[in-house]
Amino acid sequence: MHILVIGAAGMIGRKFAESLVKKPLSADHASLRLTLADVIAPDTPAGFTGHCETLTCDLTQHGAAERLLNGRPDIIYHLAAIVSGEAEADFTKGYAVNLDGTRALFETIRQVNDREGWKPRVVFASSNAVFGGDFPDIIPDDYILTPQTSYGTQKAICELLLADYRRRNIFDGIGLRLPTICVRPGKPNRAASGFFSGIIREPLVGQEAILPVPDTTRHWMTSPRSAVQFLRHAATLDLSLLDERPNLSMPALSITVGEQIAALRRIAGDKAVALIRRAPDEAIARIVAGWARGFDPQRALALGFKTEQSFDEIIQAHIDDELGGRIA
Amino acid sequence: MHILVIGAAGMIGRKFAESLVKKPLSADHASLRLTLADVIAPDTPAGFTGHCETLTCDLTQHGAAERLLNGRPDIIYHLAAIVSGEAEADFTKGYAVNLDGTRALFETIRQVNDREGWKPRVVFASSNAVFGGDFPDIIPDDYILTPQTSYGTQKAICELLLADYRRRNIFDGIGLRLPTICVRPGKPNRAASGFFSGIIREPLVGQEAILPVPDTTRHWMTSPRSAVQFLRHAATLDLSLLDERPNLSMPALSITVGEQIAALRRIAGDKAVALIRRAPDEAIARIVAGWARGFDPQRALALGFKTEQSFDEIIQAHIDDELGGRIA
Repeated sequence: MHILVIGAAGMIGRKFAESLVKKPLSADHASLRLTLADVIAPDTPAGFTGHCETLTCDLTQHGAAERLLNGRPDIIYHLAAIVSGEAEADFTKGYAVNLDGTRALFETIRQVNDREGWKPRVVFASSNAVFGGDFPDIIPDDYILTPQTSYGTQKAICELLLADYRRRNIFDGIGLRLPTICVRPGKPNRAASGFFSGIIREPLVGQEAILPVPDTTRHWMTSPRSAVQFLRHAATLDLSLLDERPNLSMPALSITVGEQIAALRRIAGDKAVALIRRAPDEAIARIVAGWARGFDPQRALALGFKTEQSFDEIIQAHIDDELGGRIA
Repeated sequence: MHILVIGAAGMIGRKFAESLVKKPLSADHASLRLTLADVIAPDTPAGFTGHCETLTCDLTQHGAAERLLNGRPDIIYHLAAIVSGEAEADFTKGYAVNLDGTRALFETIRQVNDREGWKPRVVFASSNAVFGGDFPDIIPDDYILTPQTSYGTQKAICELLLADYRRRNIFDGIGLRLPTICVRPGKPNRAASGFFSGIIREPLVGQEAILPVPDTTRHWMTSPRSAVQFLRHAATLDLSLLDERPNLSMPALSITVGEQIAALRRIAGDKAVALIRRAPDEAIARIVAGWARGFDPQRALALGFKTEQSFDEIIQAHIDDELGGRIA
């Protein structure tokens, strides 16, 4: 099996590639071949002795999609995107990468499909940012997509394109609307959603974290582990089960910041919780108020996508995967 | 007021331009200026003595959008599209016209807006074809768009673009999801939906009409008059009332073919009804079964969009507008 990962240098792309190497997806694991691509050079997963090509590649450049597809992969994971904040700040760049880049990929597949009959599987990373405006506390699977950011708009458009190309038998495909990933490893970043991870990640290593929103703030979160598992499940899922709607809201936990903190207290004690400093920030609170608070992802659950049962599990996964099982 | 109509040679575009000339939109009717554009030369509406420019113009050609916007219109009606059947038959052409053409228009507005601060109103003709797959008998305003044709996909993508450009203050705008128009004047055409008009239009002039589906077939229809009225209303509506969701399902009647025929009988008698020849066509029945049967367009109704109260009214409007008030 030959798998192409576009966006392989990102946090999820890297973890996904590592998981493919460590844990067989299928019985023919010995034949696993990887092509890992990103705008910066991706690493070859540690310990992989199979065929792995790494490519530095920008989908907006002429000929880039052709180069990526040269090896005619069986499965294409398209995880690459300009993130929400940057797509909002730079209108042209956001559309160029998130819309035109994706379309160039789909169009190149169409041309090869026309010539050779090659029909890969495409797994597209969409986002809960496709929802916006006035929505219910629990968003059902058949709720309208009215994004309130250019990033969300671009993801929603790509969902529509994926569905149409799939319907026309150009490729098979599935779109996964990823929840906010928490606990995101690494340094604090300037994403408005960063604090959801920061208030867990920093105290677990004895550092202070800033909480800019009230404890009652509710959000939809899953772990990096679950996100990787969504991508893995999409590799082997029988896509005919998706009927006419190949884009799915993924499962996650709908929990409040207060519930996050209670879980942190159970696992790491009052000392850790004391490192959370409340510094209300109305600008961030306003942005977060526009984000989905919960979903009823019946279709994804019925198709076997799974998430953690409690936020305690999510914290424990972070401790196991990122901190070698130890906390400060 | 300067109004640009793109797609002005089409049935609705032509009727709309005529209505603008005949019935003042606003108090400054004397200052009305029209730019009428289409891929074939549009007619200047009869009796119009004001400034009217007609342009033959293909939005997919380089520089076409710049030419269209040269006069910096106050309102831009974008009604032009490759129709459903052709967009399905010719994938590349459908995307080129319906998606890339619309995007070229929006992008050109953005560039002029950047330079000059010009901010027109854009009225975009979307379609009920944005809905598809498994939907309820009565589709609510917050129902997901999962089109099952390339045409519907292209319209849904343009709705998303319109909302994002509007949100970013590049132009003000509204998208109107037009129902099936009935009774469509003119010759029978090969559109799968043609019979909804044909079974009324042909018998009213003493000609036979073919009915390829069962009498129980339910569909969502409004008159050409109402469609023109939707476009007129969009010219002066306070668009701030649209909040974050500028694309609206328009009102229409959810009626069965049997109810259409009963109305025809009331207005034109058994003799007219006898001209309808039932010739079941499974291919057409299958296509029609995938179309929306009804909507609950609460938002559009609250904003003052109106349709006929009965199909009798729709037939009478056709007799008045197209047959000079007389039937065979």
